[in-house]
Amino acid sequence: MTHCDSSTSSTGTMVTSRKQYVVSRPVYSEDSLAEDHEKIQRKHKALTAHVKEYLTCDAKRAKAAVLSALPVIGWMRSYRVREWLLGDVVSGVSTGLVAIMQGLAFSLLASLPPSYGLYTAFFPVLTYFFLGTSRHISVGPFPVLSLMVGAVVTRLVPDEGAHANITDFEGLTQDQRRVLVASSMTFLMGIFQLAMGVLQVGFIVVYLSETLVSGFTTAAAVHILVSQLKFVFGLTVPGISGPLSIIYTLEKIFVQITSTNICDLVMSIVIMVVVFIVKELNDRYKAKLPFPIPIEVIMTVIACGISYKLNFEDRYKVDVVGKMVSGYESPIAPSVEVFQESAVEAFPVAIVGFAVAFSVAKVYSIKHDYPIDGNQELIAFGVSNIFGAAFSSFAASTSLSRTAVQESSGGKTQTAGLISAIIVMIVTLALGFLLAPLPKSVLGALVIVNLKGMLMQLREIPYLWRRDKPECVVWVATCLGAILLGLDLGLALGLGVELLSVVFRAQFPRCSILANLPGTDLYRDQKDYLQVFQPKGVKIFRIPSPIFFANIEFLRSKLVEAVGFSPQRVLRKRERALRKIKATFQKRDPTITEKALEDSCWTTPDEMCANTEEMDPPCDPKDVSFQINMNADLPPGINFPRVDLHSLILDFSAVSFLDISAMKGLKTALKEFIRIDVDVYIVSCDALILEKLHSCMFFDDEIQTSMFFPTLHDAMLHVLEKFKDNRTVDVRNI
Amino acid sequence: MTHCDSSTSSTGTMVTSRKQYVVSRPVYSEDSLAEDHEKIQRKHKALTAHVKEYLTCDAKRAKAAVLSALPVIGWMRSYRVREWLLGDVVSGVSTGLVAIMQGLAFSLLASLPPSYGLYTAFFPVLTYFFLGTSRHISVGPFPVLSLMVGAVVTRLVPDEGAHANITDFEGLTQDQRRVLVASSMTFLMGIFQLAMGVLQVGFIVVYLSETLVSGFTTAAAVHILVSQLKFVFGLTVPGISGPLSIIYTLEKIFVQITSTNICDLVMSIVIMVVVFIVKELNDRYKAKLPFPIPIEVIMTVIACGISYKLNFEDRYKVDVVGKMVSGYESPIAPSVEVFQESAVEAFPVAIVGFAVAFSVAKVYSIKHDYPIDGNQELIAFGVSNIFGAAFSSFAASTSLSRTAVQESSGGKTQTAGLISAIIVMIVTLALGFLLAPLPKSVLGALVIVNLKGMLMQLREIPYLWRRDKPECVVWVATCLGAILLGLDLGLALGLGVELLSVVFRAQFPRCSILANLPGTDLYRDQKDYLQVFQPKGVKIFRIPSPIFFANIEFLRSKLVEAVGFSPQRVLRKRERALRKIKATFQKRDPTITEKALEDSCWTTPDEMCANTEEMDPPCDPKDVSFQINMNADLPPGINFPRVDLHSLILDFSAVSFLDISAMKGLKTALKEFIRIDVDVYIVSCDALILEKLHSCMFFDDEIQTSMFFPTLHDAMLHVLEKFKDNRTVDVRNI
Repeated sequence: MTHCDSSTSSTGTMVTSRKQYVVSRPVYSEDSLAEDHEKIQRKHKALTAHVKEYLTCDAKRAKAAVLSALPVIGWMRSYRVREWLLGDVVSGVSTGLVAIMQGLAFSLLASLPPSYGLYTAFFPVLTYFFLGTSRHISVGPFPVLSLMVGAVVTRLVPDEGAHANITDFEGLTQDQRRVLVASSMTFLMGIFQLAMGVLQVGFIVVYLSETLVSGFTTAAAVHILVSQLKFVFGLTVPGISGPLSIIYTLEKIFVQITSTNICDLVMSIVIMVVVFIVKELNDRYKAKLPFPIPIEVIMTVIACGISYKLNFEDRYKVDVVGKMVSGYESPIAPSVEVFQESAVEAFPVAIVGFAVAFSVAKVYSIKHDYPIDGNQELIAFGVSNIFGAAFSSFAASTSLSRTAVQESSGGKTQTAGLISAIIVMIVTLALGFLLAPLPKSVLGALVIVNLKGMLMQLREIPYLWRRDKPECVVWVATCLGAILLGLDLGLALGLGVELLSVVFRAQFPRCSILANLPGTDLYRDQKDYLQVFQPKGVKIFRIPSPIFFANIEFLRSKLVEAVGFSPQRVLRKRERALRKIKATFQKRDPTITEKALEDSCWTTPDEMCANTEEMDPPCDPKDVSFQINMNADLPPGINFPRVDLHSLILDFSAVSFLDISAMKGLKTALKEFIRIDVDVYIVSCDALILEKLHSCMFFDDEIQTSMFFPTLHDAMLHVLEKFKDNRTVDVRNI
Repeated sequence: MTHCDSSTSSTGTMVTSRKQYVVSRPVYSEDSLAEDHEKIQRKHKALTAHVKEYLTCDAKRAKAAVLSALPVIGWMRSYRVREWLLGDVVSGVSTGLVAIMQGLAFSLLASLPPSYGLYTAFFPVLTYFFLGTSRHISVGPFPVLSLMVGAVVTRLVPDEGAHANITDFEGLTQDQRRVLVASSMTFLMGIFQLAMGVLQVGFIVVYLSETLVSGFTTAAAVHILVSQLKFVFGLTVPGISGPLSIIYTLEKIFVQITSTNICDLVMSIVIMVVVFIVKELNDRYKAKLPFPIPIEVIMTVIACGISYKLNFEDRYKVDVVGKMVSGYESPIAPSVEVFQESAVEAFPVAIVGFAVAFSVAKVYSIKHDYPIDGNQELIAFGVSNIFGAAFSSFAASTSLSRTAVQESSGGKTQTAGLISAIIVMIVTLALGFLLAPLPKSVLGALVIVNLKGMLMQLREIPYLWRRDKPECVVWVATCLGAILLGLDLGLALGLGVELLSVVFRAQFPRCSILANLPGTDLYRDQKDYLQVFQPKGVKIFRIPSPIFFANIEFLRSKLVEAVGFSPQRVLRKRERALRKIKATFQKRDPTITEKALEDSCWTTPDEMCANTEEMDPPCDPKDVSFQINMNADLPPGINFPRVDLHSLILDFSAVSFLDISAMKGLKTALKEFIRIDVDVYIVSCDALILEKLHSCMFFDDEIQTSMFFPTLHDAMLHVLEKFKDNRTVDVRNI
């Protein structure tokens, strides 16, 4: 290592006086900079080297692999029994109660009998305990996923009409068919998640941006609301799926509105009002209450009791949960035919399920400072869903509210999840009969009242509109798309719009003409400052975005607008004029060679420039062997077009990438200017892009590396030096 | 306008000596720069003002509107009869002959009787004559579109099995049904094009990048090749549509390969070989030949003659064109039911049709220097297709080869197109019987031999792979997708991959740590240069891409990697240590206030910094009212984490946009550093982004506008000045 004082280097001096910017160094082009400062030739690792490294195996790596595949080993070894166990047990019991309620309610969303919701709150938890990296999320049913599963279930096994043509359905009851559809779809979803985890593509969830997820969940809330209305009103509405199903469902509800079951409606409204108020109070007196009032559990118990006592089922024809299957069913094989029918829907379910779980897990991993691993989470959810599907449960992810309960009531590890699963199991095995008289409308009301948070996201629309219009468009498109087209198509639409919005931002950038701030080496948009310095014949054009196929034409047209003429048209006119001039002069004096003529036409002599406002790049008159005074000698009707530009400087500092199509367009654009004798300079070009230009044969006789300069000021000084004699100063006052 | 000399300004001096870069000016932050240089407050035009301006109407605008709606007026007024008419007539006749051949051949692609191809080469030309802005393209059938129409035709009216359940089909023959499907779809496609033109969204074709179109047309060539094999082999293969149809079609062909019609096969091979060789010769001796040999017309005439003479149809069971309907059919109404069935396919047909025509038109408009208007072209094609559809023609666009004939044989305006239409009309009305004995295998062979150019595009794969991997992926994905899934789905897939590729390029940029090149104000990647200057405690991190939802987390992790510690973790450890220290000290001396303690912990005194390698940002000891010698006084087991960084400079020069999600992430990231007393500076931030940060409430007590500097060197000088006393110089030698 060599130490040397920075202030006395061989190439120049950098003096740091108090709050003064003093630099004196040679003017650099990229070429001369590379000469003066020793550059290291970096070798890029080949793809094979990366693969090799990835595939290397030793004892340490093997151990790390086992630990990362079974995270339970890691946290079990450091489990602090005294500190954590009590919290885990308390949390497990509370979470278990919530899980029971949600399991029952969400199974209605999935159009399945209630007990399957309890299965979903049980089986996936068991495998997640071993495989999951998050210590706080509560695995189990999630309303949006339940609804997405429900859409497929009602499509393949509708309430009325013929079910889909699936041979595996033979000999099964309506409910058994539905369970088969739900579990097969869940199995497939698990396979998708597992595959993504193994392929290490968990990063794709970054494409589900906050805005997209917000719009999507708001739409999901609307769907959930509509799907629960039939329970609240006590109506029989067949499940409808596909685009516009929400409209058709609402239509069916309003047609039957007269046959509303008043008992259901009154009970629902009472429960909604009470739960809503108590929840608000819980929120307001959060600090003063030792724990939030479990109003949902209380209302369920009360409703159960009243319904049983007054025999709602028989007396008011209220639809109740009814007798649940006690215990578990033996494992079933998924149906390959259902796979084929539901593959398109299972994929978004897999993505959404993972995205929700991962984003919730991330919140708590940051809060409690432990690492989570996206790909391992995918594997954990994949295996959990496959395992759950084998035991007839449906798509599991996490629920925000349930996870909040698990964490806030003291859960420290997935032990709490395991205990909640045991609570759920107890109900399934022994206490299910207690829930039999519970009206479905109560569950519906509880689902609806919990949608408040999701629906409140609507307030984001004006917020986003004021701040960032493209993002607002993404929100609205995703939300409307998901409401009208259904959740899966809406998600695809939203993703498309979101990707387009990124492209769009880069596609129509605001280009600007830069000018020097007098007395500095700084260059800013000429429109923004009162006093700017713009040497005559020099234009600085800033390209404020990456250059790629979708904006190269736009940028070219902006460049033409900025310089005030089309170089292509000037070139063509010059060629035409040249041909005519050639003809005329050769007629007059056949000894004039074509070469001399061409030279004299392309390079306008100095005396001529002096009296034309539009001037061509001047050159040394000595070089020209033959002169024509164009103004005087030109035959009438021939006009040799000139431009008032000798140097064009392109500011590439914001060009973060450049694709092949754009490179071709850029090359053409540069050549057009070079051919009409405008010097083109490119400044602040990224080193990687410069490297790419070299590897793609961008340079030739006309486009040379000497046009690259490190800063705008270097290029400007170079230009001023080159055109020293006819430098004119023009300080504009706009 | 005020004129003043640039070299003597009030704020500093800019001296331009020969090839020397000398600057002496104050160090500026963005704030002080705005103070010193008068900035103009620009007002952005409100949306309503734009709308108002757009809707203003006066005589001039009205005239321009009429002229742009009927471009024929413009070029008719300047028609030079003597110069142009002969060329237009000659060109029209040659183009007409080609149009007849192609019309017959492409109708096979569309699975329609041959005469409908002639209609397509006639009706759309008539309206395009009045509405089109391109003077050189030859409007009519295009193979890729014909194939896309054919896919829908065979789906709705298959050769075998039941046709789609469409009531309008009643009482129609197989062929009539097919014509109804094709014309209805064309009608719908025309409506799409017209709507896009009226809505001025012609710009969307920029998303069909060269790479995408190349991959797509290569796939189309493969489809066309496969679809023509049955004619070449003289087999009866039902048209199959939908994903993987190409595989099924090939399977069907190979199953029947034994029943090949030898006469068809031999004739096809002879024609293919002859046409191929003559075309190569045409290409090679382009300069010497007065016009290219019209080998296709010659071969067709010969084949017609032989087939008629030897009675191929009866003797060898060769499939011939047969008796054509003479004259035109009366207009038919499109079927709304077909609209519903084909809407998904008609949209890509509309896009592809326009994109091809527009890109061909652009080539010739540049060559001949006249403007074309994308939106007017959309309207022209929309109206032409609607008009054509009413007379039973199918989707029209342009064909590259036919347009080349029209232009190279001397066509100057659409008059040539009109004449070619008249030639086509003559054949339809009077000479159709001459074509009756023409074997379909001849047409198939001619189609196949013309695919050479499109299939040669396969050579782009290795070219793109070497130069730009994402673009290669787009090509291959589009091509494979379009081959396997069908052209419409393939196009959608390709578009998706293409948009993703743009996002991808911006998503994983190569971040770098910059360092000063000694003796200059330039900063480069520290890994690239042997001698660099990196003051201790300062990190310069370059963000080389826009910041948006998909890369903010990636950038944050790269930043943590670059500084070598996680600010969040440091903060949490500090808080924990602080709590312990507080407890310990308050036990020892209860009079110590919490405030004093906090101050002393957060700001490490100077004497301590001197003997620790890892130092905290030093601050003026006077400000601290209470001191703890942390090293000596800290109770055992308490470790107060320190970092060896006092200033972090973020280079934003390549950040061309910033979305709301990213803004939140950025704010959090900055705060994390500020809270552990690292000064954060942002340099070279785009003016628009700065404006947006202001409007989105980015600034607060912690994040202030004073952190913005115009250049890296300004920020560095500011930092060096601030930490003058303990500045250490470290010239690294990597």
